[in-house]
Amino acid sequence: MSLTLSEVSKHNTDKSCWVIIKNKVYDVTDFLAEHPGGAKIILKYAGRDATSAYEPIHPPDALDKNLAPEKHLGDLDSSSAAALSDARQHRKKTEDELRMEREQANKPPLSRILDLQEMENVAHKLISSKAWAYYSSASDDEITNIENARAFTRFFFNPRVMRRLSNTNPSTTILGFKSRIPVFASGAALAKLGHPRGEANITEGCGRTSIVQMVSSNASLSYAEIAAARVSPDQPLFFQLYKHKDQSLALKRIREVEALGYNAIFLTVDAIVAGNRERDVRAGWTEEDVEAIAEEQQGKGKKGELPRKKTDMEELESAIDVKGTAGALVANDDRDMTWEETIPWLRSVTKLPIVIKGVQCVEDAVLAVEAGVDGIMLSNHGGRQLEYAMPSLEVLYRIRKQRPDVFSKTEVYLDGGVRRGTDVVKALCLGATAVGLGRPFLYAQSAYGAAGVVKLIRFWNVRW
Amino acid sequence: MSLTLSEVSKHNTDKSCWVIIKNKVYDVTDFLAEHPGGAKIILKYAGRDATSAYEPIHPPDALDKNLAPEKHLGDLDSSSAAALSDARQHRKKTEDELRMEREQANKPPLSRILDLQEMENVAHKLISSKAWAYYSSASDDEITNIENARAFTRFFFNPRVMRRLSNTNPSTTILGFKSRIPVFASGAALAKLGHPRGEANITEGCGRTSIVQMVSSNASLSYAEIAAARVSPDQPLFFQLYKHKDQSLALKRIREVEALGYNAIFLTVDAIVAGNRERDVRAGWTEEDVEAIAEEQQGKGKKGELPRKKTDMEELESAIDVKGTAGALVANDDRDMTWEETIPWLRSVTKLPIVIKGVQCVEDAVLAVEAGVDGIMLSNHGGRQLEYAMPSLEVLYRIRKQRPDVFSKTEVYLDGGVRRGTDVVKALCLGATAVGLGRPFLYAQSAYGAAGVVKLIRFWNVRW
Amino acid sequence: MSLTLSEVSKHNTDKSCWVIIKNKVYDVTDFLAEHPGGAKIILKYAGRDATSAYEPIHPPDALDKNLAPEKHLGDLDSSSAAALSDARQHRKKTEDELRMEREQANKPPLSRILDLQEMENVAHKLISSKAWAYYSSASDDEITNIENARAFTRFFFNPRVMRRLSNTNPSTTILGFKSRIPVFASGAALAKLGHPRGEANITEGCGRTSIVQMVSSNASLSYAEIAAARVSPDQPLFFQLYKHKDQSLALKRIREVEALGYNAIFLTVDAIVAGNRERDVRAGWTEEDVEAIAEEQQGKGKKGELPRKKTDMEELESAIDVKGTAGALVANDDRDMTWEETIPWLRSVTKLPIVIKGVQCVEDAVLAVEAGVDGIMLSNHGGRQLEYAMPSLEVLYRIRKQRPDVFSKTEVYLDGGVRRGTDVVKALCLGATAVGLGRPFLYAQSAYGAAGVVKLIRFWNVRW
Amino acid sequence: MSLTLSEVSKHNTDKSCWVIIKNKVYDVTDFLAEHPGGAKIILKYAGRDATSAYEPIHPPDALDKNLAPEKHLGDLDSSSAAALSDARQHRKKTEDELRMEREQANKPPLSRILDLQEMENVAHKLISSKAWAYYSSASDDEITNIENARAFTRFFFNPRVMRRLSNTNPSTTILGFKSRIPVFASGAALAKLGHPRGEANITEGCGRTSIVQMVSSNASLSYAEIAAARVSPDQPLFFQLYKHKDQSLALKRIREVEALGYNAIFLTVDAIVAGNRERDVRAGWTEEDVEAIAEEQQGKGKKGELPRKKTDMEELESAIDVKGTAGALVANDDRDMTWEETIPWLRSVTKLPIVIKGVQCVEDAVLAVEAGVDGIMLSNHGGRQLEYAMPSLEVLYRIRKQRPDVFSKTEVYLDGGVRRGTDVVKALCLGATAVGLGRPFLYAQSAYGAAGVVKLIRFWNVRW
Repeated sequence: MSLTLSEVSKHNTDKSCWVIIKNKVYDVTDFLAEHPGGAKIILKYAGRDATSAYEPIHPPDALDKNLAPEKHLGDLDSSSAAALSDARQHRKKTEDELRMEREQANKPPLSRILDLQEMENVAHKLISSKAWAYYSSASDDEITNIENARAFTRFFFNPRVMRRLSNTNPSTTILGFKSRIPVFASGAALAKLGHPRGEANITEGCGRTSIVQMVSSNASLSYAEIAAARVSPDQPLFFQLYKHKDQSLALKRIREVEALGYNAIFLTVDAIVAGNRERDVRAGWTEEDVEAIAEEQQGKGKKGELPRKKTDMEELESAIDVKGTAGALVANDDRDMTWEETIPWLRSVTKLPIVIKGVQCVEDAVLAVEAGVDGIMLSNHGGRQLEYAMPSLEVLYRIRKQRPDVFSKTEVYLDGGVRRGTDVVKALCLGATAVGLGRPFLYAQSAYGAAGVVKLIRFWNVRW
Repeated sequence: MSLTLSEVSKHNTDKSCWVIIKNKVYDVTDFLAEHPGGAKIILKYAGRDATSAYEPIHPPDALDKNLAPEKHLGDLDSSSAAALSDARQHRKKTEDELRMEREQANKPPLSRILDLQEMENVAHKLISSKAWAYYSSASDDEITNIENARAFTRFFFNPRVMRRLSNTNPSTTILGFKSRIPVFASGAALAKLGHPRGEANITEGCGRTSIVQMVSSNASLSYAEIAAARVSPDQPLFFQLYKHKDQSLALKRIREVEALGYNAIFLTVDAIVAGNRERDVRAGWTEEDVEAIAEEQQGKGKKGELPRKKTDMEELESAIDVKGTAGALVANDDRDMTWEETIPWLRSVTKLPIVIKGVQCVEDAVLAVEAGVDGIMLSNHGGRQLEYAMPSLEVLYRIRKQRPDVFSKTEVYLDGGVRRGTDVVKALCLGATAVGLGRPFLYAQSAYGAAGVVKLIRFWNVRW
Repeated sequence: MSLTLSEVSKHNTDKSCWVIIKNKVYDVTDFLAEHPGGAKIILKYAGRDATSAYEPIHPPDALDKNLAPEKHLGDLDSSSAAALSDARQHRKKTEDELRMEREQANKPPLSRILDLQEMENVAHKLISSKAWAYYSSASDDEITNIENARAFTRFFFNPRVMRRLSNTNPSTTILGFKSRIPVFASGAALAKLGHPRGEANITEGCGRTSIVQMVSSNASLSYAEIAAARVSPDQPLFFQLYKHKDQSLALKRIREVEALGYNAIFLTVDAIVAGNRERDVRAGWTEEDVEAIAEEQQGKGKKGELPRKKTDMEELESAIDVKGTAGALVANDDRDMTWEETIPWLRSVTKLPIVIKGVQCVEDAVLAVEAGVDGIMLSNHGGRQLEYAMPSLEVLYRIRKQRPDVFSKTEVYLDGGVRRGTDVVKALCLGATAVGLGRPFLYAQSAYGAAGVVKLIRFWNVRW
Repeated sequence: MSLTLSEVSKHNTDKSCWVIIKNKVYDVTDFLAEHPGGAKIILKYAGRDATSAYEPIHPPDALDKNLAPEKHLGDLDSSSAAALSDARQHRKKTEDELRMEREQANKPPLSRILDLQEMENVAHKLISSKAWAYYSSASDDEITNIENARAFTRFFFNPRVMRRLSNTNPSTTILGFKSRIPVFASGAALAKLGHPRGEANITEGCGRTSIVQMVSSNASLSYAEIAAARVSPDQPLFFQLYKHKDQSLALKRIREVEALGYNAIFLTVDAIVAGNRERDVRAGWTEEDVEAIAEEQQGKGKKGELPRKKTDMEELESAIDVKGTAGALVANDDRDMTWEETIPWLRSVTKLPIVIKGVQCVEDAVLAVEAGVDGIMLSNHGGRQLEYAMPSLEVLYRIRKQRPDVFSKTEVYLDGGVRRGTDVVKALCLGATAVGLGRPFLYAQSAYGAAGVVKLIRFWNVRW
């Protein structure tokens, strides 16, 4: 079926809501209530082209997975598609887009980037302010995010001298998979916000440097696309599972990644309600929204009457509650996971190794060991969930002090605040098997694609 | 009796001192010595209209309560009233007033305010510099005020995972009264300085969100006006008692709030001398004062003589001692309260629950329990009284460590430095029943009236 | 004998060095070697008028005490005196003097000064940069000076409530002498640098407020002038003794102050070598010096030769070593005092109470007690002597913890970093009898004379 | 043999690489692979004059020591030499050189420099930005460098009073050699980067002030030149040995300094891989490099084709890896030294006292004692090697607390962060025999030559 812009434009309410994505038309009326990001954000595009808002934050298979085939109404006719394309080309660029273009033209050569901070600085300049807000933001006053890194600054070495060094080798194994250095890419969502190739950049970069990537349930590429980006067929991939509250959908997701050859399940347990990431929420308020609110506040009187400005209370009650991206991503996650039920169920449905990602205190590390998992990952989600969660390294230190037996019973990883090679060594000294990094991989691929990811790993491996 | 401006203007000395307030004339000659804020501030308006200075800091019933009926001399005649009104309208606005008007016009919509700090920032812009000084100032170098908040930053969570969360409920009871969340509005005086509706904004906001308001003895509305602002007749109100040194006046105040249906007495014990709030004192020096001092310093010689400038010692001895607002409010408070006499007396005169507000160390928490009170409130008056008083949260922590039995014998509340939901949770983890906030409610109502108060509570309740 | 400028000008070398002070001529040739501030600074004025350099830092009786009568050569003749006076009047004012005049004209009224920091700020603006450098400077990086104050910020109160307060009284006795509050003026030299009346301002201010002044051996007024400034004959004065290495001169000084009715000896033991006060040293380099050095560096070749610039090594070896003021003041002090000899000697020569000023550790506090002194004063000379000496309050705290018996055997005072009333209370809580302040009195008298000193004490006494 | 520029210019590839240094021509083709700084940096000058790049960082005997005589091809002919000289004179000065000239003209007289920080500030202005980067940089975020100094700020004195002081004497012996104060010049490489006389300035300055200099293996003068700069024949010199991985070359180096009369061996054990000094690496990127990269990135298409810009990955793989100076200096050092083999070997080949430089923990201090060395030097290489190595003073403190017996068995020195006389005293209080300083000597000689070094020592000795 071929549809015109004019036909689509009639379906612009919550009674009948059509949207255009990549020149295809979809009826999302029934889906409005299910949309994890809320109905209101879709209704902004009701009867219109939603491609630019949709594409960077949804994997390509999202429509197939979530929308019944009969809601796929068909293609736009060619003159409508041409009109859209024309409109896109003549659209006035925003200030943010113009800035990004200027910065892209002045990007420093990658060989001149010497550390993660410089990489982040380049990415900050290159990516959209919305991407920056999503990537960099953390909860409340971002204290745990800051403390994750500061915790490393409190640990100093007692360096030994007069030891043979010329034959040292930093490679290791993680869950039995070889890794060139004890570092892996931790799960981090929505890589396409920073670079069109998205998570595939990380896959390629990890493959070239022989380290492991953990892929987020909330990746912006499909799990299949990421699997296809592997440098060799046996390149390991771990899967960061956000468990759906609907057990059958959770199982379906596991079956999908098993079929694609993913090698382990990292069950995320620290993100079942959304963190309060104010910068991310604020980034969702476009200039247009602000103008709309201003107009609304001026009020529109009935014919012949003077318009009345809304009271503060009226404005408050009627305001669109724009959720941050974080809120949308976890809307359907299981809030009632337990040690007693969830781990045995997961064991029963998959043979893959199971790691609990998001352990934040000694007591839960012990419970995880008792639950028989293959690894525990000390993480507070990069400070993006519970503000004032203990920094990951401090949790590691407490396990070392109070329950060193944990290290002999399971592999222990951590992420949060790792930025220098010395950070990695500190974690290893305290008992960790390996450490993960999240944001740095997002920044590296945003700034330089797969080459950025390669460079990131070389920062630490350059001496060998 | 109808009086003219001209007649009033003759009574402009401490021998005979008349003032006009809201077009009524009062003889305050005998009251000069009793005025808690001192005689000099009244004499500035002797024989003149004092409305603008009087109104924002006195409840409407203050004249009835404090001035004998025969001193209510009568109304201004209509032409005098018209002249005053005219003068007010043509008065040149001060720089501060012009700033406030500009900021009011640019106030952001309330739905865009994401946390208490943003709310405070808006209020800071909107209110008079004098109101800001009174609300925000604290003692000496404001260390305890700062440390109240910093204390919370020293406590980190040991977050647990894999617990059922979907059915949690944050509501609680305080002294048996239901509260939507374990948070209440702590006593805070002079709300009218920030908004014409004053404390009634807080009453309405608390009523709409089902939390409890504690009303200060020094409210700028009458206790009756506040009671009348309740959203429903059973909305609970607590009364923050500043005990008058005259026992009979203290009792009269208790009887008044009992009659109005207030539900508990919070006896304030940490504010019997005035804190040294320098910013508040300084805010009392108007531009006019400064000019007067300058003139005075130039000196006025006798006829035919050159004027002589005052020496530093003469200037020091003759200077008007402008007390800060704080000093005026506590001038008549009882400085000799004791555990042995005051609590039994209070028990003997009222059946209302009694809470001691201003406990600042473990020893006094224990004495309060032994005195049989219904609750203790750990508070240092927002750092406005004794500088270097221990932060409230640290006192709570010490009780938890040294005398955990206190929590089983009485309810424990705290205020001081609570700004985030995580702060509330930290206090609860350490044993508190609920926490109070003072300044944030003043800022919220100053900026957005009752809607601001509603929004403030929703910051923390938004997930349920 | 009457002398002319022309005659004086011939005596301009170290072989014969005459100088003019207040229109009198002195032969200081033999004194050059004895001058505590070094010969070079005198030789700068050889054959010339030295009044302006001499006066602010020497008491009026210094010439009588230090120069034999036959070296007092006589008066300048009247036309020479007139020429000097004329030259002074037409002298171009320095930038620093012009700044001071401007600031004096804009000095705020004293009644508007609310705390010690504001008082210091005013003084900083009013006094010469050299006075500021001498008053405010401390050793090396001024860490102990800063830490003296910061130590107070580490002590918080456990405030008690429900105690009778209306009849409290802060007066005390120090060595048996009554004091309105437990505060005294600690020894501080060279008050005339900041105000022409110098130490007499402090004497008058202390007398009016009934507190005690400790007078420095290095006062810029004579001890007699200070005694004469007492408000009443029984106003107590303590004497801060810098013991001369010549025992007979030390005794002479003690006899002088006994005769003048001083009431106690505070023996200074922490300043027997000069502290390294770089700002003070630098302030001694006038613009003229700098120009002279520049010229010298350019070099002056022999006739017909090109001038040769000095090498760095030559410049270094030939440079005038301008000592800071501190160095001059302690040049003749006894560097070999001991507990075994000095205290018994002092006891044997005077009946006055003896206090050791400059105790800086617990061990020496104990030794002082064992030596039988009447009091010990914990002091590190305001951080002006040994850098990284422990802050006074920390020493007090350690005595309290380790040797509380000290407090029952002697009176303990402290100075260093006391700025707020709460600081005084903290020292008293830890066992001190009273506290001294040094710089604040210098600043107060510099800015407002005796009235400033009165105001300073009222900061803390204003509530009673 | 006499050669022309034109002939030399033909040998400009890695197949045949000739360079001109000080008007002599060398064939370095075979040496390219051995060059510790890598081949690429030499190839930049292939067929050209390399004098300006070569001279400041190589001792004059480097070519004799490292290049076979037959590779010394002979002199440039005179007209070629004249042409080079002419080119040098007409070369446009860089911005950095112009800055240095301006600052040199405004250098303050040395007598006005009061402390090490001021000395450093002058040097910073005077030296090239490359020299500054090499001298001042440290590893990663330069934390250990900063903490070395901060550690001293955490130690306060318990000063004693009433002790005889007039006859104190700060002189000491180090390994039996007299030292005017317990301070020596620690090994620091490449002094010529800051001043043309280089290490000889330090030798002269130490000789004049009777302290000891430790000479780095990586000095920019030959060991013979430094020995020749001694003020007297018996002026002691210590040698900081970087042990070559080729035992015979290591031995040759020891024999050389023994023959020159050096008095002790300080074996460096903390610098066998290069520290990650980013500022040093970055300083190696000249403006010309950056332009070359930019051009290269633009790409050069084949004839008739459009040029293609390199991808990020291509740029990354092809980039010249410009090592920092640090990397070049340690490229040939022995990475397999052990307590069991290296110390006995060293003992067997030399009678000189042996000190281990670079001990960084208590355990290794004990091992060094057990290995029978004559002294241990607590050092982390000025924070230039392992980031987050414990500050030297903290290591000293831990030895004092845990293994005080070490001090009775060997001499203990430290460097890192010593800047004030009080720092020296703190180290001595904790048990050190003497302390070394590195960078301050480099700065002092850079700014004022030998006179600067003399002044540096006088900062601490000025009172005697």
